[in-house]
Order: sequence, then structure tokens, then C-alpha cells
Amino acid sequence: MEIRIRKIEIFQVDLPLVEGSYKWSGGNSVEILDSTIVAVHTDQGLVGYGEVCPLGPAYLPAFAQGARTAIAQIAPAILGVDPTKLSVVNDRMDQSLRGHAYAKSALDVACWDLLGQVAGLPLVTLLGGRRGDSFALYRAISQDSPSEMGEKVVRYRAEGYSKFQLKVGGDPEVDFERIRIAASAKKAAEVRIADANTGWSQHEAPKRVR
Amino acid sequence: MEIRIRKIEIFQVDLPLVEGSYKWSGGNSVEILDSTIVAVHTDQGLVGYGEVCPLGPAYLPAFAQGARTAIAQIAPAILGVDPTKLSVVNDRMDQSLRGHAYAKSALDVACWDLLGQVAGLPLVTLLGGRRGDSFALYRAISQDSPSEMGEKVVRYRAEGYSKFQLKVGGDPEVDFERIRIAASAKKAAEVRIADANTGWSQHEAPKRVR
Amino acid sequence: MEIRIRKIEIFQVDLPLVEGSYKWSGGNSVEILDSTIVAVHTDQGLVGYGEVCPLGPAYLPAFAQGARTAIAQIAPAILGVDPTKLSVVNDRMDQSLRGHAYAKSALDVACWDLLGQVAGLPLVTLLGGRRGDSFALYRAISQDSPSEMGEKVVRYRAEGYSKFQLKVGGDPEVDFERIRIAASAKKAAEVRIADANTGWSQHEAPKRVR
Amino acid sequence: MEIRIRKIEIFQVDLPLVEGSYKWSGGNSVEILDSTIVAVHTDQGLVGYGEVCPLGPAYLPAFAQGARTAIAQIAPAILGVDPTKLSVVNDRMDQSLRGHAYAKSALDVACWDLLGQVAGLPLVTLLGGRRGDSFALYRAISQDSPSEMGEKVVRYRAEGYSKFQLKVGGDPEVDFERIRIAASAKKAAEVRIADANTGWSQHEAPKRVR
Amino acid sequence: MEIRIRKIEIFQVDLPLVEGSYKWSGGNSVEILDSTIVAVHTDQGLVGYGEVCPLGPAYLPAFAQGARTAIAQIAPAILGVDPTKLSVVNDRMDQSLRGHAYAKSALDVACWDLLGQVAGLPLVTLLGGRRGDSFALYRAISQDSPSEMGEKVVRYRAEGYSKFQLKVGGDPEVDFERIRIAASAKKAAEVRIADANTGWSQHEAPKRVR
Amino acid sequence: MEIRIRKIEIFQVDLPLVEGSYKWSGGNSVEILDSTIVAVHTDQGLVGYGEVCPLGPAYLPAFAQGARTAIAQIAPAILGVDPTKLSVVNDRMDQSLRGHAYAKSALDVACWDLLGQVAGLPLVTLLGGRRGDSFALYRAISQDSPSEMGEKVVRYRAEGYSKFQLKVGGDPEVDFERIRIAASAKKAAEVRIADANTGWSQHEAPKRVR
Amino acid sequence: MEIRIRKIEIFQVDLPLVEGSYKWSGGNSVEILDSTIVAVHTDQGLVGYGEVCPLGPAYLPAFAQGARTAIAQIAPAILGVDPTKLSVVNDRMDQSLRGHAYAKSALDVACWDLLGQVAGLPLVTLLGGRRGDSFALYRAISQDSPSEMGEKVVRYRAEGYSKFQLKVGGDPEVDFERIRIAASAKKAAEVRIADANTGWSQHEAPKRVR
Amino acid sequence: MEIRIRKIEIFQVDLPLVEGSYKWSGGNSVEILDSTIVAVHTDQGLVGYGEVCPLGPAYLPAFAQGARTAIAQIAPAILGVDPTKLSVVNDRMDQSLRGHAYAKSALDVACWDLLGQVAGLPLVTLLGGRRGDSFALYRAISQDSPSEMGEKVVRYRAEGYSKFQLKVGGDPEVDFERIRIAASAKKAAEVRIADANTGWSQHEAPKRVR
Repeated sequence: MEIRIRKIEIFQVDLPLVEGSYKWSGGNSVEILDSTIVAVHTDQGLVGYGEVCPLGPAYLPAFAQGARTAIAQIAPAILGVDPTKLSVVNDRMDQSLRGHAYAKSALDVACWDLLGQVAGLPLVTLLGGRRGDSFALYRAISQDSPSEMGEKVVRYRAEGYSKFQLKVGGDPEVDFERIRIAASAKKAAEVRIADANTGWSQHEAPKRVR
Repeated sequence: MEIRIRKIEIFQVDLPLVEGSYKWSGGNSVEILDSTIVAVHTDQGLVGYGEVCPLGPAYLPAFAQGARTAIAQIAPAILGVDPTKLSVVNDRMDQSLRGHAYAKSALDVACWDLLGQVAGLPLVTLLGGRRGDSFALYRAISQDSPSEMGEKVVRYRAEGYSKFQLKVGGDPEVDFERIRIAASAKKAAEVRIADANTGWSQHEAPKRVR
Repeated sequence: MEIRIRKIEIFQVDLPLVEGSYKWSGGNSVEILDSTIVAVHTDQGLVGYGEVCPLGPAYLPAFAQGARTAIAQIAPAILGVDPTKLSVVNDRMDQSLRGHAYAKSALDVACWDLLGQVAGLPLVTLLGGRRGDSFALYRAISQDSPSEMGEKVVRYRAEGYSKFQLKVGGDPEVDFERIRIAASAKKAAEVRIADANTGWSQHEAPKRVR
Repeated sequence: MEIRIRKIEIFQVDLPLVEGSYKWSGGNSVEILDSTIVAVHTDQGLVGYGEVCPLGPAYLPAFAQGARTAIAQIAPAILGVDPTKLSVVNDRMDQSLRGHAYAKSALDVACWDLLGQVAGLPLVTLLGGRRGDSFALYRAISQDSPSEMGEKVVRYRAEGYSKFQLKVGGDPEVDFERIRIAASAKKAAEVRIADANTGWSQHEAPKRVR
Repeated sequence: MEIRIRKIEIFQVDLPLVEGSYKWSGGNSVEILDSTIVAVHTDQGLVGYGEVCPLGPAYLPAFAQGARTAIAQIAPAILGVDPTKLSVVNDRMDQSLRGHAYAKSALDVACWDLLGQVAGLPLVTLLGGRRGDSFALYRAISQDSPSEMGEKVVRYRAEGYSKFQLKVGGDPEVDFERIRIAASAKKAAEVRIADANTGWSQHEAPKRVR
Repeated sequence: MEIRIRKIEIFQVDLPLVEGSYKWSGGNSVEILDSTIVAVHTDQGLVGYGEVCPLGPAYLPAFAQGARTAIAQIAPAILGVDPTKLSVVNDRMDQSLRGHAYAKSALDVACWDLLGQVAGLPLVTLLGGRRGDSFALYRAISQDSPSEMGEKVVRYRAEGYSKFQLKVGGDPEVDFERIRIAASAKKAAEVRIADANTGWSQHEAPKRVR
Repeated sequence: MEIRIRKIEIFQVDLPLVEGSYKWSGGNSVEILDSTIVAVHTDQGLVGYGEVCPLGPAYLPAFAQGARTAIAQIAPAILGVDPTKLSVVNDRMDQSLRGHAYAKSALDVACWDLLGQVAGLPLVTLLGGRRGDSFALYRAISQDSPSEMGEKVVRYRAEGYSKFQLKVGGDPEVDFERIRIAASAKKAAEVRIADANTGWSQHEAPKRVR
Repeated sequence: MEIRIRKIEIFQVDLPLVEGSYKWSGGNSVEILDSTIVAVHTDQGLVGYGEVCPLGPAYLPAFAQGARTAIAQIAPAILGVDPTKLSVVNDRMDQSLRGHAYAKSALDVACWDLLGQVAGLPLVTLLGGRRGDSFALYRAISQDSPSEMGEKVVRYRAEGYSKFQLKVGGDPEVDFERIRIAASAKKAAEVRIADANTGWSQHEAPKRVR
């Protein structure tokens, strides 16, 4: 049975944040996540989808427009290739462009999607099988005033979260207050992490932790 | 769609060697390989097959009867499990018996076989896709008189082999002759390796190589 | 004086536990230990005994039926060998089967037993001589409710034990209670160890220790 | 004295190769280098120029269109900045986009150009001063038939080159011939290097070097 | 445009300390810093200045008279050289005298001064550009009686200092008192460091820190 | 069955060399080996023998008279001890004298001898059993004129030796001649080693080996 | 001026301890130190003295009678040698006996004594010159009952000692009491060390220190 | 007996080279060595002499005028000190000036000279005693034309030298010729070394050595 990639589409999608804005150390923030969706079409009518969505351009060496430019560079090299042969797809991508793995990942995911469709199986089965029925997610608490952050912890807990990551890394005194308030609201089985995102210098960090 | 392991069969199979006997250093030899085949049956009628075939009991820490005993120990633990959930299958096998990976591999292969059947795809596709159309195999030349070994090189080349592994590791002078004769018959693009299988002591090895 | 191994017998023995059941982390437990005894007979009528008794199949890479299968594989190779030549016996065992040391140990112990009989000396003398008159054993306390475990500590102390190993590694709160109760019963010169048997994750362990 | 970046222009330029085509191992080749020029305009009328020109998209993790996309991403962040404050310029570029140093280098070079203009000094002086009057360049010899490559060595020597880099990494026999012919034409004080550009496997390399 | 070093002058300058005397561990002290200023004159009338001022002869392997002697040794080697070619200037200095970097630094600074004048730019611009507007200096507190040192901390804070380095390393009890008094006067955002200048032995140091 | 050490005798024995004199690098030589024999008597009439025989006082940190003095120091500490309890014997020896292992070895061997007698077994059996029937010994060739050394190789070969160790380490030219002559007499399966016994300096050694 | 060693005398001297007996961990004790004095006589009538005095035979790998035996072995090799040529003396000693440095040290010290006499200078001058006028000695407190040890600390302090080394390493509780009593008597500037002399096992040591 | 340093004199001495000029790699050369002699006078009329003579200012981090300046800096600190107390003398020198060991060495040697005079013994005796009667010196052959260097080897051999160090490190071809000619004149027991004094780059060195 022959199957070939016939067309690749690239879509830009704006993902507005539920909280409105997400803030972390160094005054960084994002309001909208600029996401990129690829649709890989085969000659038999199947379509696989993949996505790459950097957390803004300064969080990792990846950015939305760069992903789209790189995908456009790579796409011609996999037209006509069997998308279920993942190693062949990846070889072709590497030959057409060195590096830029974050852009290739969207196409790779789309081809895995096609493999799942061809196999008639969910991807989780092809990757070893589902081990459990649920997974506890962390909820990142955007940097804000201590009281705002404390209220969010309460609100999200009501939604079912039990793990929180506090975005600190601002003024030391305020950071301390942020952590104190959030901790005071802590229940026995909950987990809380304070993440300064490189906003503390190396010699300040241990002092603040204490 | 539910799929469950309903029955596991274990078969013993004697594999006679084409050459009659295969000899290597230290006077070791085998005439028949004692192989073990497992058939994993599902409640929907599918059957997956796997095999484990140690090269005698003294080559690696694995032996045929031990494989069958270990498989019998493990099998009950995966009855009723979904064979396409490979990580679950392997977790169960590890919980029922620590170590003895060679025995587990037969059951693991059989479940991969079932996954391929369920997906309607050849296993090579699920493992990344075929990259080429052929692969040059090595032909091991059983330890024998130099002239016998030289003739075998000629005969196997006629069958299409171009890579040979000479089993040496016996009397030094004879070993040297074995290598010399085989090398004299060598063609430009061919590869030959002499394997002493721990039959040379550490201080002898460099001398003989030269 | 010539002495040869003439016959090797393998026995299966069920060893019921005094406590009825022995439990540890991960829900593991055993009620009966499946032990294997070998009897090595010589042509002069002497018989040496050895034993191998894995703590179930999942504690170490060893299991009872596997031990018996491996011993059956090895036994023919040492028939006719002088059992007092321990290095020769072990060479033969290694040549007939690679690895599976736990199975070989039963035969090795049986041959040491024969050596002691031939020498007319207790084995401890052949191994360097007894240094003291007694040795304080650890008493493992099977995982149970904290109060049950506390009572067992009291009971075993009455039998003369002064060192205890608490099987923890279950629910953190209960584990803590287990350790607390046992510790409260501790006398000055006693030793207590809490063993989670890999039942705590690496990042939990230090927290719980404190 | 105040100086500010007022405008940044990005130009695409096709650089045809003198040889027509440049080939290396793995069947790679380029005919035209896709170069990117940036012009950084200041509010006082000065213009600094920088360039980034990847050797195709597969040689390093860099490609022409990606450079232009990244520069477009970065440019707004340095508008209004004093271009002679190089560390400030680079801080801003890093804050607006993580990684992608190859794209930033074009803007960095353009700002150095402006610094030199403002200082009224050649850049070499700001970087420590010129140490000599000339520098012997290597001439890369595109992969071709051995005779073609030998002729090129002769031709380029007539133009004044005395150092050559032979692009090999193809068929072993032909590679050897390529090196042999080029070497036969070698004069006493000349230097020649054979570069397989990852076209030889690790275990083949030493054999071929000999 | 040609520019050459035409004349080099060396000046000795006594720098009396504001405090009158500066004392540290081991009974060391200085009242006057013996500084050396070099003036590098060019054939076009420009003059660049540099300075080297060791903290007495025993603090680092450098001393005032030694600096002047070494500069006198080096100076002839850079007469006639273009002072804006910093790497050429430094090559010449290294060829005329090995080591003694502290003496060369005065001439190096003077040539950087000339480069700035020729460029019509402040040196900070040639070194990457100014990043901020102020920088908090440490104030070293000369070793004295604890009360004297406590008063100095108060006085210097009035002048705007918020970071202090206490010179301890004398009698342990007195050292402790020195640190205690200074610390008692500490405000929230201030930093204080106690520096024993090798006046504590390795095994005493941790004890005293505690 | 109780057994105790009742008496220990120390004997001095002169062992004249078969060759008359044994010479090696640095002008060292010995004519007679000064050996020490100990007899360990038990209360049941058994006697165990041990020996220590240093190759003169300058070869290793051991000498004959020192061995006897140390044995006299140690002997009282093991009177009354059970000689078959080897670890107890050695604990006692270490408590009565630290170090001087070469002297203790004679008493240790004598006690092993007694253990063998008590067991009615040869010591080789207690140490793991004999693996082969013969062992090829090296014959050291005392440093002499090259022709003398060549003749000795011939003579010792007639006695059955096939491995020789030439004592070189004198004048370089003569050393070379020594090795050459000996090598010229070498048969196919023979082994020869030249031992300079620290008589060559580190930088001379590689040159001479070549 | 010629000077030669003409005669070497060895003396045994019993040094009774002021305290009567000196005890430390493991039940070790000494009442009398067995010391060895050597007198090195020259042909010009000068006599140099050296001493070696091991702390019993089990403290270090050295014992009194062994020292005398080794000195007797070495002495003939330095008769006739110039004792002021220390390196020649030591070369001769090393050539006549390998190792046993503790015995050689007595002869080495005696030759240094002669060198000082010949130079007419105190040895301290030949070794770099005296740096101070006094040196505070440690006083070892023999293992005893805690109260006995406390009293000794008081008594020795009256004699002028201010540093004490308590010999502990016995029963843990008693050790603790030993340290507590001694510490309670401690004055500000005094130093006290508890030395278990390997009498504590590695895992006990940290617990006891705390 | 008291002895004190009363006066220190510093002398400059020109040492003309026997060869007229000494040349090495990089065009370096010296005609006259600028040496510094110190005379240390004691209050009892004894005078000790020391010398420091750098091989020009660019060979090591040391130069003649710098030595004299540093000695003038140090000298006051050792006036009145007992010169036979070498460690006191060196402590004082280190306290008055950090580093500059080459200057201190002249004063150190002068004080050792005084110690020898006071002891009435040659310094070699105080440093361990003379081991042999002669020592073979290397003769450095100044860089010159190959034939000149070959002649010098011949001439110096006539004077008794048998070890030569050829100063190479110039033009590669000429260097090779220098080594070849010198080697052709080599006698059996002679040693020759070619020293490029950093005049060869790291990647050239191995090629030239071959």
C-alpha cells in the first residue's frame, strides 16, 4: 500500500491566555501565544496535524515566525515521501536544513498522526501504551502581587489543581511575601514550587531559599 | 476496541546447522541450535510469534531450557493484558521476574507482532520505516583447517556474501595460516574479520595481529 | 585417594514463614519460600548438601524454578569430577553455562561441604577459623500497621533480638507512624533501620528521612 | 553627542560562484550563495552595513531566509538604541530573541561599522591594530573528477594561491585518486588538505588516511 | 593618517590616604601610596596618560620602584610605534621584557587613552558602551579598635556608602568584637564583608566564621 | 578436637647457589641465600614448617636477620593458639607487631602446613585444587659476559627450560650484545626477557629496547 | 680535612614513663619505652649520637629489637665513610638494606650531630635557623577513668601545659564522660583533642563526635 | 656567638661572551650578559657573595636592572638579621617584597656563603655532600649558518665537550641542514639536542622532528 505526502499547509493561530496575561521574572510577559499548525496531506486523502508553539521568542531559541520560515524551507523536501516512514522523513528534513529542531517537530508530529490513522490506533499505543488514567498537571501562577497570587492558588485549587508553580524572581522582599502567602494556603498533599526563571543571581539564590 | 492475551504457548524447535557443525575458539561447537518459539494468542483470534535462540548455553548468560522455564514463570502475569500496550506488558514481566531479559524478549517480540497485525502495518514501519532495500550480512566461517576455511570463503562468495568472519583462536601457527589463506582469496571490496572469541590471551593478541 | 562425584539430586522444599507472611514496599509479599536443595553424592558414599533459596522471583534476578533448571543443565558437567577441587568444579560449571551464579552456588556449597567431610574439619576452619562465639542478627519486621509493627518489635526483643529492620516504603504518613512507634520502643543499645526497598522515589527520600 | 538607530533595511543578494558550482561530500552542492545584507541607518545620516551568508541551509544550523526572518524579529528592539554601545545593542538583541546568533551577527557587524565611522578609524584599529600586510588564503577545490581537480590546483596556483583544500568524501577509490593527483602537483612550500566533510564513516577514515 | 609615539615620561606621585593610614592583617599598613604615572606623547602633540599604583610592595608581586624600572626598560621598544595599534604595542612590550605585566599596564592604559582621543570617543564606548549610570563602591574599613571601626561605618554611610569591607585578621576576640559592632549598625539593604587577608590559619577560619 | 601451638623453632640455613654466584644490574650479586625456616610444634606432636628467604637485604625491604628478629618478637603471641584458625593466628601476629609481613609469612605458611596435616589433604586442595600437571619455570641468567650468557641459555635448554630472563642493566653496548647473542640462539616456541632491574635510566630505556 | 666513621656503638635503654603507664584504645598500653641509642665515632675522636624509640611494636611498623638488628646490618656499610656527607651516608645505607627507614634514622641523626660539631654550629642553624623561642607541646592523657583523666588535666595545667590529647576509644558512654569532664575544666585559650586511635569504627565516629 | 648583617653592596658587572654573540630563535641575541653581584657584610668582618644574571630581559620574567631595583627594595629589611638563619632571612625578604624570587636568590646565596664560612665547611657539604668528581656540561651552539655550527661542534669537542644543544628555530630548511650537519659529525657516545626556543609553531614541530 503506497502512501505519499501531497501537500503541506502552514497555519498561524493566536492563542489568547485564559488569565489574560502571563508574567515571569525580568519583566517578561505574554498575552497571546503565536502558534503554528501544519497540516500534512497525503495522496489518499488523509491529513495529519502537528503544532509548534514557542512561549514567546525569548524563552527558548525558538520563535513563531522562525518556525514558519523553517517549515517552508523544509516542506518541499518531504513532498512525495511516505509519511509513515518516520526515519526517512526525519532524514530528509535534516538534509534540507541543519538544526532548527523545533520547526521540524511540527512536521514530525503530523506524520506520527498519519501513522496512527493508517494503523487505526491511538498514538499512545504506538508509543508503548497508556500506563494510567490521569496525570496531575502543574498550574503556573503568573507573577503578580502576593495577594493576587494567593487568590489564584485558591481559585485553581477549586478547579482541581493540586500542584502550583509560583513565578517569582522580582523584588526579594515581595518574592518572599509571594511564597509565604501561597505556602500558608497549602494543604497537606499539595506541592508548590517557586521558579525565579534566572531572575535571581547565583549568590542571592541560596540566601532567598533559606 | 478491547484486545486481551488469552493463551501463551511455548514450543521447542531444533534448528540443524546448514554447515552441520559450527566451531569456534576453546574447542566450542554446536551442531543443533535449541530454539524456543512463543505463540501469544488473543481473545480475538490473533496470534503473535516471538523467538529466543541462544548460541548454546556458554556463549552468553542464556540457555534454551532456562528461557522456557523463565517464560513459564512470566506467562501468567501477562494473561489478560492488552498485548499492544508494550510498556504495560514489560512492566508486568519485570514485576513477575527480575532479570532474565533474554526470556522476556521472546514475549516482547510476540506482542510487537500483534501490534503490527492490529495496525495492519509491517513492524519495520512502526519502528521508523525501512531505510534501504538490502543489507550485507556477515558470514561466520566455522573454525576448521585453513584449506577448509579458504574453500568455504570461495563457496560462500559464490552465494553472494562479501563479508566474512573467520573463527580463529586455536593454535597460533594454524590461526596465522587460516588468516593468510582467507586473505589471499580476498577481493578488493570485501571485508574479512578474524574473531578469536577470547581464545587469545591479552599479551598474545597484539603479537598475532601483527 | 580418589574421590568422584557420582550422582546429583535436586530437591524442592517449601519453607513456610514463621510470621505467616512477609510484606515489603510496592505491595510485595511472600508466604512460602520455594527453596532448592542439592545433594552431591560421591563414589565413596559421602554426600554434600547445598541450598539456594531466592526471596521470590522479583527480589533479585533469581527464581526457584530457574535455579532447578540451571542446576539440571550444569550437573552433568561435574559428574566424575573430584568435588574437593573447588576451582576445577567451578571451571566446569562456567564452561557448561555462562552466568546464573545463584544456581551454581548451591553446587559450590555442596562441594565445600564434601571438602570439610574429607578433611574432617568444620567448614569455618577451612575458611579462616571462627573469630567469635555469637553474632547479633537483624530481625526484619514485615510491613504492617504501625501498631502491629510496634508489637512485633516488643515480641522479638523478648526473644533476644536487639536489631530490627522496619519494612516501610508505603504511604508516607503511615511510614512515618511506623518509624515513630518503633522508635519510641527503642532501648539504649538497640539498632533500628527503616528499609523502603525502592518504594520511595529519589526526591521523596530525603524529605521523609528528615 | 547623541546617535540613534533610525531605520534598518534588509537586502537579499544572489552571489553566483566564480566556478559556477561548488560540490562537496554527500552529493551536496551550491551554485548561488543566498546572502543577506543589513543597512543600519542612524538619525545623523550614517549607515553601517553587515552581512550574513550561510553556505546553503545544510552546512551549519543557519539558512538565508531564516536569517532574514530573525533579523526582522530583532530589528524593532534596537531601533532608537545608540549603535556605538555594542554591549547594549547585543543585550537588546538577546532579550528580543534567544539564540539564532548567525542572524544577530549581521546587525552586530553593521554597528561595529558605525562605531568605526564615528571614531574616524578603520575597524582593524579598534580591534587591536593590523599586525601584517597580507594573509595567505586557502582555496577550496570543489569535488570533481580527479583530473579536473588537478587542473584547478594548477590554475589557482597561477593566480597566486599556495594552499588548497580538496573536497573529497565520495567513492573511496576516486577519493584516493583525487588526493594522489593533487599531491603529485605539489610544490615544496605548498599546503594541501583533504576534507571529507563527514562523508567518511569513523572506521573508514584512518584506513583512507593511510 | 600616521601617528607615532615620540616621547614617554614617567612621574612619581605620593598619594596620601584620606584616613591617614590604612591597616590590615599581619600588622601591615600604608600611609602613602607610591604611584607611577606615565605620559605617552605622540608626534602630533597628543598625550595619553596611564597609572600603576601597587598597594605597597608586599600585597601583590609588584612595587612602585620596580614598576618605574621596568617601564624604563620597556619604553625604548615602543618609541616610534603607532599607539593606536594596541596589539602591536603589547607585542613590542612583551618582546623587550618578559612578565612584569603590572608595569606594562600603565603604558597600555596610556595608549588606550590615545586611541580614545584619536577616535573622539570616551574609552567606555570603545570597550562596549556604558551599561548603567552608577556603581556602588565598597568602602574598606582599616583595621582598628572595634569602636573606631564602628564609628567609621557610621561616618562613611553618611557619605553615601552602603557596602563595607572590615579589615580583620588580628586577635580572634577583638576580630569578633569588630564584626559584631559593625554588624549591629547594619541596615537592611547594606552589605558587610570581613576580610582577614590571610591573617587566619586554615583551621581557625571556619571556627571564627561561625 | 583441641589443637594448640606448643613450641616454635627458628633455623638459619645457608643455601649455596648452583651457579656459584648470581649477578644483576648495579654490580649486585649473591653467592649464598640466607634462609630462615620455622617449625611450629603443636601439643599433639604435629610439626608445621614455613620458610622466608629474601634475595639478599637490598632487593626488597626484607632481610634474613630481620626476619628472625621479627619472628622472635611475634612467636610468643601465637603460643597456645589453635594453628588451624588462620585468621586468629594472623590477628595475633598483627597485634604483636605492625608491618613486617615477610616475617609473618613464614609462620603463616607453617600453620597452613598444619591445617593440611590435620585435614589429611594436600595444601593445593585446600587452596582450590590443582588445575594442571606441570608449570613452565623461567630460568634467570645471571649477568655475565655475552658469550657466557649465551652458553648458559644453551645449557639450561638442555635441562628442559624454554623460558629465560637475561639479567642486563650494565654497559649499554655489552647489554645489547648480551641480548643479541641470546636471541640468536632462540627457538620458535621459546620466550626470552631482558631485565635491567632499574639499571637503566628512564630516558635510556626506550632507546635500548629499540 | 678528612673525617671518617671509625666505630658504631648500639645501646639499649629502658625509658620508664613518668605516669607509670600509658594506655590507649584497644587495651593497648606501655610501661617502659625500649629505646635504642647509636654512637657514631670518627677517626678524629668526635662522637655523634642518634636515637630511635618506637612506641611499642604495634603502633607503627617499627620495633626496638628490629631497629637494633637493622642497624647492625647497616653499620658495616658506613664504616670509613665521611659522616658529614649526608647524601653519601644515606646512599650507602639504602644500598645495604632496602626499607626500614626507622632504623636508618638513628644513624642519620648521629651523622647530622657530627656535621654540627664539625661546623661548630647548632643543628637548628644548619636546618634554616630558629624561628621562635618556645613551642607549646601537647600533653597526651593516658586512657583512664573520666575522673582520673580530669584530674590529670588539672595537674598538667599546673605544670604549664595548655594543650591536651585525651586517649579515648573505649566504651562509648565512658568515652563521652571522659570528654565531658575534661572539657568542663577547659580554659578559654586551651586546646583539647580526643584521639580514639582507630578504636572507633567508621560508622560510629560521626555519631560520637556529635 | 652573635653575627649580624651590617652592610649590603650591589655591583653591576658586564660579562662579555667568549663567542662574541649568542643567538637563538626569533632573531634574539645577546653580546654581553648584565650580571649583578651582591656582597653581604657582617659586623664581624665576614663577607658573603651572591649573583643573579638573567639571560637578557626577554628569556625569563627577570632582568638585570629589575634585579638591582628589587634588591635595593629588600636590602633594608635584612640589615641587622643573623645571615646564618636562612629561614629568617627569607621570611624577611618575603615580607618586604612579594614575588621577584630571582632578585632574592642573590641575597639568599650570599647568606649561604656566610653560613659556609661560619661553619668552616664548603657549601656542598652543608647541602648533602659531593657525590662525584666531575659533571658533563652541555655546550649550547649559538644559531648560525649550518657550516658555522658544524665547525663549532668540532671545535668544542676538542675542548672536551661531548654534549651539544643546537639553537635552531629559524627557517625550516636551514634548521634541517643545521641538524643534519651537526649530526653527521656525531660520535658514538655523544649527545645532541636541537632547541627551537618556541620558534616552531605547534603544528610544525612534529613534522620537523621527523
